[in-house]
Amino acid sequence: MKEELLNLLKKNYQIVFNDITLLEQAFTHSSYVNEHRHLELTDNERLEFLGDAVLELLISQYLYANFTDLPEGKLTKLRATIVCEESLAKFARECGFDKYVRLGKGEENSNGRNRPSLLCDLFEAFLGALYLDQGFDSTKAFVEQVMVPKIEAGAFSHEMDHKTTLQEMLQRNGDVTIDYQLVNEEGPAHERVFYVEVVAHGQILGTGAGKSKKAAEQRAAEVALINLAKKGK
Amino acid sequence: MKEELLNLLKKNYQIVFNDITLLEQAFTHSSYVNEHRHLELTDNERLEFLGDAVLELLISQYLYANFTDLPEGKLTKLRATIVCEESLAKFARECGFDKYVRLGKGEENSNGRNRPSLLCDLFEAFLGALYLDQGFDSTKAFVEQVMVPKIEAGAFSHEMDHKTTLQEMLQRNGDVTIDYQLVNEEGPAHERVFYVEVVAHGQILGTGAGKSKKAAEQRAAEVALINLAKKGK
Repeated sequence: MKEELLNLLKKNYQIVFNDITLLEQAFTHSSYVNEHRHLELTDNERLEFLGDAVLELLISQYLYANFTDLPEGKLTKLRATIVCEESLAKFARECGFDKYVRLGKGEENSNGRNRPSLLCDLFEAFLGALYLDQGFDSTKAFVEQVMVPKIEAGAFSHEMDHKTTLQEMLQRNGDVTIDYQLVNEEGPAHERVFYVEVVAHGQILGTGAGKSKKAAEQRAAEVALINLAKKGK
Repeated sequence: MKEELLNLLKKNYQIVFNDITLLEQAFTHSSYVNEHRHLELTDNERLEFLGDAVLELLISQYLYANFTDLPEGKLTKLRATIVCEESLAKFARECGFDKYVRLGKGEENSNGRNRPSLLCDLFEAFLGALYLDQGFDSTKAFVEQVMVPKIEAGAFSHEMDHKTTLQEMLQRNGDVTIDYQLVNEEGPAHERVFYVEVVAHGQILGTGAGKSKKAAEQRAAEVALINLAKKGK
């Protein structure tokens, strides 16, 4: 099992730990420590404390640099959505970490291996161990590989009202007319898909698809925001 | 005023900004931006967002490394005490930053320059600017110069029940008898000072003074914790 985890980290993320005990500690839940007192193990809670702060800075830095037009309140809201328990548990699963965490029997029997809070803590503890073992830049590279693509694909955008954000952004220097144009719709009535373009100053800023016109508009506005952010506008 | 701030940073902290506009932004409150729209300034709120996360990691890392025996829950509590609004406002004042923040007239007249939330944001925005301009290690050096000595002097220890923490720590590997011995008391009845030693395994672990026996015991336990943490025990 330990070998499998080492191989997984090397193959998927080019990560080779110098201090394997740190990695083991990250994958050790307190319930396992309590059931194996003679082994004098340390659980992953202190690493989670550290990893939580490392992740907070990495995501803050990414949002600060890439969403140059979002005000502080929106950045804070977006960050909270990205680093919440549900989201981090999902990343832990996507990395396959859930298979390798060491649990006590009680925790295992009560389905702890699928509990979001446990998986979230595991993910943060891994980041804490990675930070101690390999430093800030390596931890950043891991987060950029694992988390950033999901952010850019809009996985966290359900919390954001993109149409309002886009409007605030474009109108900062005076009035701008923003048009959402339905350019296509297809499929049978119960599975209809709508395609919308968002246009300002005669330019198409983004295109979005969705199951309703409203969803397609939100998606188009989101794409426009990402495009504008990338241009650093 | 700007010159004064530059001199202060150089003299007290050996900090010379490469990008002065970042420093200016950190010292610009939104009320000033709103009253000077023609200048097209940017307020310090996004820098505060970033600086908050930088500070969170720096303090977490310091606590993780120096309080090796504190469990995650205690670390979290201690961190929350150190990075709270009241505490950061105090650091902003101690650095003399309150004198240099640019405020709108309304904010100035309503005593904004002394408002803890404004000063806390200012301190975090400065850290954000410092991080962007000089990187992680320089920001760490600043925090180590400004904040860490206060932490080590026990400025944040009022939140902690040191006697309980010490007991938990020493008894982790079996029962230990911990004695608090009153070794001296002096002064008139209304200004009495008590001196207490904490002893375990026949060794004096720490000594504390206070206006009550209880306060002196807490202080002695705190000193013992710091001594033990420094020994990495």
